Amino acid sequence: MTEVSRRRMFAFAGAGVALAGAGAAGAGIDRALDSSNASAATDVVPFTGAHQAGIVTPAQENLHFAALDVTTKDRAELVSLLKTWTDAARKMTAGQEVGPAGAVNGAKAAPPSDTGEALELPASALTLTIGFGPSLFDDRFGLAAHRPDALTELPAFPKDKLDPARSGGDLCIQACANDPQVAVHAVRNLVRLGFGKAEVRWSQLGFGRSSSTSTTQSTPRNLFGFKDGTNNLKAEDTGVLDEQVWVSAADGKPWLAGGSYLVARRIRMHIETWDRTSLDEQEKVIGRTKGNGAALGQTAEFDPVDLQVGGADGEPMVPEDSHIRLAAAESLNGVKILRRGYNFVDGSDGVGHLEAGLFFICFNRDPGKQYIPMQKALSSKDAMMEYVQHTGSALFAVPPGVSETGYWGDTLFEA
Amino acid sequence: MTEVSRRRMFAFAGAGVALAGAGAAGAGIDRALDSSNASAATDVVPFTGAHQAGIVTPAQENLHFAALDVTTKDRAELVSLLKTWTDAARKMTAGQEVGPAGAVNGAKAAPPSDTGEALELPASALTLTIGFGPSLFDDRFGLAAHRPDALTELPAFPKDKLDPARSGGDLCIQACANDPQVAVHAVRNLVRLGFGKAEVRWSQLGFGRSSSTSTTQSTPRNLFGFKDGTNNLKAEDTGVLDEQVWVSAADGKPWLAGGSYLVARRIRMHIETWDRTSLDEQEKVIGRTKGNGAALGQTAEFDPVDLQVGGADGEPMVPEDSHIRLAAAESLNGVKILRRGYNFVDGSDGVGHLEAGLFFICFNRDPGKQYIPMQKALSSKDAMMEYVQHTGSALFAVPPGVSETGYWGDTLFEA
Repeated sequence: MTEVSRRRMFAFAGAGVALAGAGAAGAGIDRALDSSNASAATDVVPFTGAHQAGIVTPAQENLHFAALDVTTKDRAELVSLLKTWTDAARKMTAGQEVGPAGAVNGAKAAPPSDTGEALELPASALTLTIGFGPSLFDDRFGLAAHRPDALTELPAFPKDKLDPARSGGDLCIQACANDPQVAVHAVRNLVRLGFGKAEVRWSQLGFGRSSSTSTTQSTPRNLFGFKDGTNNLKAEDTGVLDEQVWVSAADGKPWLAGGSYLVARRIRMHIETWDRTSLDEQEKVIGRTKGNGAALGQTAEFDPVDLQVGGADGEPMVPEDSHIRLAAAESLNGVKILRRGYNFVDGSDGVGHLEAGLFFICFNRDPGKQYIPMQKALSSKDAMMEYVQHTGSALFAVPPGVSETGYWGDTLFEA
Repeated sequence: MTEVSRRRMFAFAGAGVALAGAGAAGAGIDRALDSSNASAATDVVPFTGAHQAGIVTPAQENLHFAALDVTTKDRAELVSLLKTWTDAARKMTAGQEVGPAGAVNGAKAAPPSDTGEALELPASALTLTIGFGPSLFDDRFGLAAHRPDALTELPAFPKDKLDPARSGGDLCIQACANDPQVAVHAVRNLVRLGFGKAEVRWSQLGFGRSSSTSTTQSTPRNLFGFKDGTNNLKAEDTGVLDEQVWVSAADGKPWLAGGSYLVARRIRMHIETWDRTSLDEQEKVIGRTKGNGAALGQTAEFDPVDLQVGGADGEPMVPEDSHIRLAAAESLNGVKILRRGYNFVDGSDGVGHLEAGLFFICFNRDPGKQYIPMQKALSSKDAMMEYVQHTGSALFAVPPGVSETGYWGDTLFEA
């Protein structure tokens, strides 16, 4: 029984991929039998490297983000979990089942070593990125001396309305993929492997990546309907990434060299209010035209922003309280961040509106010098604050990439 | 500035579609300029027809479902809203902006007539399907005499744990598309157009369609990791659809002829418990093998189910309390339903688990003879009930398809 998988038509450019349900029993490991297919091969993002994947990887379409609390108090158990997770992540990012005793070849008397819902699906550019929250560096695991100074809870910002149940966490897992089922499968299997050692504190799904992270990608739109992240850092800006994203050994804690800091902010958007606002007001709030995304005063999306250009009334075309002005590097002593957020709709809010917004994720080398001053400026001056509310918040130190023989966090736990 | 859109690589099989941000200002209406492109053209599902689209349409990858309460008490306003919605739906399902004064050509002083987040995205096989809940037929709009007998609240089933905030509704909108942003955009714009007349009661996102509705599709997997809906009704079974899905004029209320009944059930799955269950137990609960989806006692997925075949112990291979036995037509006097549900993960449940499950949708001609007896059998006998909980419920009458000049519900309101 050979069939074209449902997702192949969408997940691959141009390649119908034949699957053999019965034959899969013989193959055992690879979820999609023909992963040697050229399309399938390009669908795999390498797991190992100097930096973790999922940061400068071209942003995939779908996100499942989970924050976990560690429930074991045993350091050895935590290290064992991180090794188990690393092994599972190597397999899942390669498009394989978590273990050899999954749905296909599992022993009937035991639970399968893979939950199965990603069988027949390709790797879908899955990346798994892990981070360590400030709370992991308390006295439970002997890590206090290794906590970087920059890894503290974010300060309270004006108009924050944070829900503790959507904030914080000892660990985070960012799963990005071009198929939501693959991202969900990955987080679910890591959570499953953590049973008795860690549990989910909160989790967030996202879609329609709200940033591009490579010059090969066009700029997507957020739920305000605007192109978002035109001037985002890109994977190709390697020099700037070294300066703005990657932690260096000289920054303080050598275990974090090659890593970064991940800021997560769940930003509820009051889209109903926004939708009743004039196009002129919307464009002034953002600082760009809605149609093609050009900065106000410019013609095309990628025309350089000119914060000085004045309109007929002598006022700057890009208003003083517009989002792009306040977030611009030239307003912030040259600092930039790598944005990698996703749109979300989490049902409704109970009072007649969609619970919609942006799950903001950014990576930066030093949140104290980058994200925090940027958000201080935005939260106090940004005209957009009338239409948004920050409802969740977390900061994680993202360790460097994993070697072929290493495990997530080895530079910390072997330090 | 011409770029390949981010989603084109995934939404189209094999076609890189060029977009021109600046040029879009001239085109005005079509969101994706080159919708005459062959791939784009096949990406449009016709809105008009004898039946509404989104029922036997091959199930798309993503769902946004919303139930609304009508807040106006004026029948003429309700009819006006349905006409406005129909016009918007014609445009959005064709890959166009809702109105001519959207982000691109909008008057600066007015709110845009389209919220913009689907600009540059193709139609993505968007379908919009509307339904009327029992509560719409109360005394507000003079519809009481037109309520079909079958359109009443579903009865309480054993082990239901329904949340009123996830149940019921005067109206429903089912948006399905191969891009979640397109489905979200469609519901959001219809909700926007209903401001002051209707508001969102609840809404649900879903992914990884958990059923195939055409023989051209392979069978997807639910979050138990099993192929789901192998024996589902398919678009190609036209005779059976007439018998089991489409309401006929002889069924009672002529306005509903060519329509159907939509049952929505939010089914939380206790995936953590499931994941600790042996493969043998999982397969006995479902009645199929996990690997290739063959019914127990059979070899391949589409081998006919044999409920009588016995194992070595003399017990039936497909257990008495297995899901496929209890849901089989031969256990239910021959009745079948057309399933069209989606998997969901709605964050976490606050006690360490993912809030995951199946948003079950089915279409049937008479819920009193089809869904209700089926669910009575399942809720009282199905071994799967140990692992699931029904947390939301709604029933809607789905009017017939719309003509080129008609509007959603015209057969009811003009009756």
